[in-house]
Amino acid sequence: MKSQKIPEATIIRLSVYSRYLKQLEKNGLITVSSGTIAEGVDGSPAQVRKDLAYFGEFGTRGVGYNVSDLNRYITKILGIDNKWNVIIVGAGNLGSALSQYKGFDERGFNVLALFDNDPEIVGKKAGKIPVFSAPRMTSFIKENNVEIGIIAVPAPFAQDIVDEMVGAGIKAILNFAPRVISVPDYVELRNVDLAVNMEVLTFNMTFQK
Amino acid sequence: MKSQKIPEATIIRLSVYSRYLKQLEKNGLITVSSGTIAEGVDGSPAQVRKDLAYFGEFGTRGVGYNVSDLNRYITKILGIDNKWNVIIVGAGNLGSALSQYKGFDERGFNVLALFDNDPEIVGKKAGKIPVFSAPRMTSFIKENNVEIGIIAVPAPFAQDIVDEMVGAGIKAILNFAPRVISVPDYVELRNVDLAVNMEVLTFNMTFQK
Repeated sequence: MKSQKIPEATIIRLSVYSRYLKQLEKNGLITVSSGTIAEGVDGSPAQVRKDLAYFGEFGTRGVGYNVSDLNRYITKILGIDNKWNVIIVGAGNLGSALSQYKGFDERGFNVLALFDNDPEIVGKKAGKIPVFSAPRMTSFIKENNVEIGIIAVPAPFAQDIVDEMVGAGIKAILNFAPRVISVPDYVELRNVDLAVNMEVLTFNMTFQK
Repeated sequence: MKSQKIPEATIIRLSVYSRYLKQLEKNGLITVSSGTIAEGVDGSPAQVRKDLAYFGEFGTRGVGYNVSDLNRYITKILGIDNKWNVIIVGAGNLGSALSQYKGFDERGFNVLALFDNDPEIVGKKAGKIPVFSAPRMTSFIKENNVEIGIIAVPAPFAQDIVDEMVGAGIKAILNFAPRVISVPDYVELRNVDLAVNMEVLTFNMTFQK
């Protein structure tokens, strides 16, 4: 299976399917058709089947998929069948909001700490998450087996912090700073530029219509 | 041009090119090659040329692109050559952080107000942005020509607020609630699930490696 590159859009949809399956499981549903999944996530049944087919044979013709088995398998594919330790650098508005984002905890991402340079906020907490001083970051990453770092600092500081994270052993970075960041090949990087999302909307509203 | 569907990935890259071009313009650069753009955004020159080719002929062979002309044109394509009025519903941590996100203002998105149900925060401000009570939303949208709504409420409330926004005349919605939302065909919708971004990382770290 590993020889075939899975499209990122498929991964994003798997993540959405998994949320919907969890909801169905909570409602006591045992089996589900690709049609029902498609309806629940505003997709097409053919797309659901195609996305799942990347990972092998699922379901029984005419019966459908077992809800909890399928969700367990997708969760494993996504790598969230176990927990991940996460830190956030930048304890401003965005960093604080991210540290308390319920969706992370629900999906197995443990935000252990925030880091910041501002003496006004170091030593305080954002909700239940402690804010430590930036120079403590490297030792904290090593001592707590932190694998994922989130960048929520202003753009000019982002690359320096990324370099420090990588040096400390971080394996994946989610970057919210609106700046192109470089990482070595063995580190996973994903950029979330919130204004880019807005621009996809305005493009569709103006150009594509 | 409108007959050809532009891939979303192209729009996202245009948005990134535009930020980089703005930076080059600030640095006083007059012309730029596709190679330099590619280097600045961690892409390939062929990809840059292909993305731009969707929109016509740019640049002069052997000379490159005029930085400010190209950025002005991309800005127009993205629909951000003029300003957009935006409201955010949900003035919790995430909504407050979004209302103060500098990247919105810089790219022409005016966040005019937050709306919430919590009497503890209605009437206050998040930074400079006022928080109004939720029942005022519909009249505010109509009176202030608000075209884009951001959803930052807990998942169970999201669809009701979206329906109210659509009824009030909102044309595009950026949804941060981890819930599948339905809108009529004439309304643009984009979902930002922050945990999905984390799951693309963990998938790449575990399955794809």
